[in-house]
Amino acid sequence: MDRSVMRTIKLSKVFTLLEPGPVVLVTTHDGKRSNVMTISWTMVLDFTPRFAITTGALNYSYRALRRTRECVIAIPTVDLLDIVVGVGTCSGADTDKFAKFGLTALPGKVVNAPLIKECLTNIECRVVEIIRRYDIVVLDAVAAHQSASRKERRTLHAVGDGTFTVDGRRLDRRRQMKGKIPAGV
Amino acid sequence: MDRSVMRTIKLSKVFTLLEPGPVVLVTTHDGKRSNVMTISWTMVLDFTPRFAITTGALNYSYRALRRTRECVIAIPTVDLLDIVVGVGTCSGADTDKFAKFGLTALPGKVVNAPLIKECLTNIECRVVEIIRRYDIVVLDAVAAHQSASRKERRTLHAVGDGTFTVDGRRLDRRRQMKGKIPAGV
Repeated sequence: MDRSVMRTIKLSKVFTLLEPGPVVLVTTHDGKRSNVMTISWTMVLDFTPRFAITTGALNYSYRALRRTRECVIAIPTVDLLDIVVGVGTCSGADTDKFAKFGLTALPGKVVNAPLIKECLTNIECRVVEIIRRYDIVVLDAVAAHQSASRKERRTLHAVGDGTFTVDGRRLDRRRQMKGKIPAGV
Repeated sequence: MDRSVMRTIKLSKVFTLLEPGPVVLVTTHDGKRSNVMTISWTMVLDFTPRFAITTGALNYSYRALRRTRECVIAIPTVDLLDIVVGVGTCSGADTDKFAKFGLTALPGKVVNAPLIKECLTNIECRVVEIIRRYDIVVLDAVAAHQSASRKERRTLHAVGDGTFTVDGRRLDRRRQMKGKIPAGV
């Protein structure tokens, strides 16, 4: 099993994966085993691409993030909703979540945290800084991959009350925004 | 014209307005006049509710944000897409955007930045801190209001390439997430 099921995404386009605000899975590898958490508190910081994610300091994945200073942001689609909810409601402290939820770990190109084969997109990230007073983790994307064959591409948006909104239709304002779209998008 | 067209939202629920990642309009008032910018780089930081938004230091609104330390985050719906794009592609330096786009400013309850009558939701915010090295503005919501009568409630998600995704259907996993949903939501 390798990454050949995925095609490379240019780094200049990667901010467009998180800008719409999808719920994501974040993987870590602490040297012994892989873990994964569900996160919806994410933000683009720059087109370079640089992101911020927020996670509680009590989160089990947080330790691996702090120690290894790397992770993968994997973007699931609507068909994975029950896995997203399952991953978000148990802890890596006592659960092998990859095994429990039937997720397939694929080796990344740059980082040791695994890609998730079942997800639409995987973004390999390095930690730039952790702003402890808000538990904001600043990340630089260093590689990104997208499933070549996946038909379902609608992502999920967590509302925070236990409901999720699914992507609906796409509206095009490229012509009107021409001057505002960065090069390489 | 007053706020009576809107009903108050409990602060404990306000994080659910931004958690799904909608594109927002952010208003400021510099003491002389009101301004508004389009932002899609936002993140929930805490349920209290506390948010982060990111905006370029060159942005005209940034000055008013730094000086007055308050703003309103207004959430537009799909019928306002062309206003969202228009506001995002001109500058308050040379344009009265409220006048140009026919937006109606309503007085806030706590802050001097105006609410936008045409938006679904308006969140009054105070600046907690500006993290200059990333241009992250940390905000605490101090009051929030939602249109009582508005039929259209679907929000927009900016992709960043000039296209926007509209909210599709809503999926319910409240039962499965019961233990994870904070009190008061």
